[in-house]
Amino acid sequence: MPTESPLGCDGHLLQRRKQVLGAAYRHFYDQPLHPVRGHDVWLVDADGRSYLDCYNNVPCVGHSHPRVVAALAAQAATLNTHTRYLQDGVVAYAERLAALFDPALDTVMLTCTGSEANDLALRIAFDVTGRCGLVVTDNAYHGVTMALADMSPSLQPVAGHVRTVRPPDSYRAEPGTDIAARFAADVQRAVDELRLAGRSPAALIVDTVFASDGVHPDTHGALLAGAQVMRAAGGLFIADEVQGGFGRTGRHWWAFQREPALLPDMVTLGKPMGAGHPLAGIVLQSALATTFGSRCRYFNTFGGNTVSAAVGMAVLDVLVDEDLLARADTVGQHLKAGMQALARQHPAIGDVRGAGLYLGVELVDDPATKLPASALARRLINRLRDDGVLVGTCGREAHVLKIRPPQTFQRAHADRLLEALDTGLRAVGLPG
Amino acid sequence: MPTESPLGCDGHLLQRRKQVLGAAYRHFYDQPLHPVRGHDVWLVDADGRSYLDCYNNVPCVGHSHPRVVAALAAQAATLNTHTRYLQDGVVAYAERLAALFDPALDTVMLTCTGSEANDLALRIAFDVTGRCGLVVTDNAYHGVTMALADMSPSLQPVAGHVRTVRPPDSYRAEPGTDIAARFAADVQRAVDELRLAGRSPAALIVDTVFASDGVHPDTHGALLAGAQVMRAAGGLFIADEVQGGFGRTGRHWWAFQREPALLPDMVTLGKPMGAGHPLAGIVLQSALATTFGSRCRYFNTFGGNTVSAAVGMAVLDVLVDEDLLARADTVGQHLKAGMQALARQHPAIGDVRGAGLYLGVELVDDPATKLPASALARRLINRLRDDGVLVGTCGREAHVLKIRPPQTFQRAHADRLLEALDTGLRAVGLPG
Repeated sequence: MPTESPLGCDGHLLQRRKQVLGAAYRHFYDQPLHPVRGHDVWLVDADGRSYLDCYNNVPCVGHSHPRVVAALAAQAATLNTHTRYLQDGVVAYAERLAALFDPALDTVMLTCTGSEANDLALRIAFDVTGRCGLVVTDNAYHGVTMALADMSPSLQPVAGHVRTVRPPDSYRAEPGTDIAARFAADVQRAVDELRLAGRSPAALIVDTVFASDGVHPDTHGALLAGAQVMRAAGGLFIADEVQGGFGRTGRHWWAFQREPALLPDMVTLGKPMGAGHPLAGIVLQSALATTFGSRCRYFNTFGGNTVSAAVGMAVLDVLVDEDLLARADTVGQHLKAGMQALARQHPAIGDVRGAGLYLGVELVDDPATKLPASALARRLINRLRDDGVLVGTCGREAHVLKIRPPQTFQRAHADRLLEALDTGLRAVGLPG
Repeated sequence: MPTESPLGCDGHLLQRRKQVLGAAYRHFYDQPLHPVRGHDVWLVDADGRSYLDCYNNVPCVGHSHPRVVAALAAQAATLNTHTRYLQDGVVAYAERLAALFDPALDTVMLTCTGSEANDLALRIAFDVTGRCGLVVTDNAYHGVTMALADMSPSLQPVAGHVRTVRPPDSYRAEPGTDIAARFAADVQRAVDELRLAGRSPAALIVDTVFASDGVHPDTHGALLAGAQVMRAAGGLFIADEVQGGFGRTGRHWWAFQREPALLPDMVTLGKPMGAGHPLAGIVLQSALATTFGSRCRYFNTFGGNTVSAAVGMAVLDVLVDEDLLARADTVGQHLKAGMQALARQHPAIGDVRGAGLYLGVELVDDPATKLPASALARRLINRLRDDGVLVGTCGREAHVLKIRPPQTFQRAHADRLLEALDTGLRAVGLPG
């Protein structure tokens, strides 16, 4: 039941927002959500109504987790300064983070946002290889800086030094397709095209859960196959874990570890790293940092400041102490099974994909033609919002439900989401 | 008196730091400072020794200001989410920020770092003008993203679409030089060179206190003169206030306002905006935001989050309630006069420049030749550090003392700095 507020005081706030933030800002939902409080998996709006948050991966330990807030407040009251001074906290945090990776990934560089992390990874890749050719997926999103917008086809057409490849989409591939072989062949074609255009390949960079491509965490070996082709061509493999990292996919800390033989040259981190505090970074092989560092100094005023390090440490503490990797795994499996059961009742659900608590539910107008059901997806997420459940969409046609709740999500929350989806799909009717 | 710790436990920490953060990180001072607490204008190291902070402009309201910490903690405990939802706090903060500018600068876009702000300003400038030529000063620094590194000659050689001009340096210009006319002529030459190279000029972007160029806040009308040339060529004028903003130069909120007739197309903000919390942004004319927004959406996961907005508001509250613009003005004048008195006794001080609490003290090996005294500057800042006073250096030859303390700096603090400088200059001896 929609509240009246969007036409009342929220309407005034919306107008003021549009005036002062300008035309480039968008919001979710036909009636924008106006949250004023958050706790665990819940957002509470200005009218006191609670919404089950099935969308926000940033507050990975739940909204306003008391331990994270306490660590933030205590460190901010003590000291907040930067990496040009010697600091215990940032060194201890970087060591702890690096220990969550293969020993070859032993160096940590800290930034404030995933965009800054990916942008820095590009700078290092270009510097170390002396090249600038890039390979990304068809509807990739890697961030908002100029260099990243140029290689984020979900935002704008890619620049001349960028080529795209198909994500490991087993739903839309011809039946029987070897997804890894197709991905490798795509990367080889991209490398060849770059060379024909006079650009040598510097890196293959992929979001390891392929979120903006419609969520494809089951990569069928594509990451390793693609990385091998890129390395044979003299380029690097960069795993963008801004979406998939910090245990969200269950069992592993990092989504790329779902391919056990894969060792990235660099891994970029962001969103959940500070549970909402601006903290992001790169974990990389030390030879790359040494080569880059011999030519360039790196300083980020806020990156790796004492407060960020304390917050990052608290987030790791909570993830471990509350056993949230296992939670993502078991609750995620329950949720995925429930989605698959729903799919058997609702032909609009063409495919259910996911690992842990990162799920994509692909909506189609017809299971046979697999025509993307963008309008249905839009109606559905708005209906769910009105029903008190928050999900988003992704994919080029915005027809895939993007489900990635805080990792404190429980079975009862999953059941609430499944029930709302079932009701919602019946209510918004058949696609048309 | 240096403590022993750099050879003891700090030596071990230094080694761990080098191992895990890698070769691109640098620190200040031959014996890196290891602060563990901060309050007001003081940093306290692991041995309990206090240092007068004459360097850090980020904690503009003083280290760990209780009102800022309280606002941060309270909002983090309540809600930390993003601009795709409707939020009172971010709208109110953006409105308050915009009200500190000419009414034509009415739109605010929020990021986490000054680098992100400058990078976004470039994206908007390129999009709106359809051009990519840029003009910056000789030793400019505008940030660490790939696009900004390319136009930051203090970091690396500039890219092909960038031309440089001399800063408004009245100390090294020929006596009688019309600084504004020289700057305008330089910008015109840069525009002409860009055109010859097949690039049309998109923007002139300057740090309005010219910090990395050696601190030149007295611009002698150069900003307006340069902006007029750039606009006549169809480009924009971007004032980078990451260094000079938030009242540091005294009297005005923004350093560019020291030239009353100047109205930038965009103003970028950062460092002190959140007093250490990663908060930055752009204030721009709405027509630019509308054009950009009609083609591009803008979303920054952490930019303008509810916590950042609360922190930004608290920083503005403290700056106003503690009258810190006036403080920067009066204490800055006292400090500058003291520096000028020191210069009469120490021939190594070639020039004293500054506005409010942003000062540059240029050290030379000989007042006649004005040869930059880089080695002396290095010895001096290390000596000052050992004496419990923190300053840095800037300028291409790192021979200008960069003095920009928290804006809660008082006359007694200024006197302590002047005394330490006097003693230090005597102790480190004549340049050689």
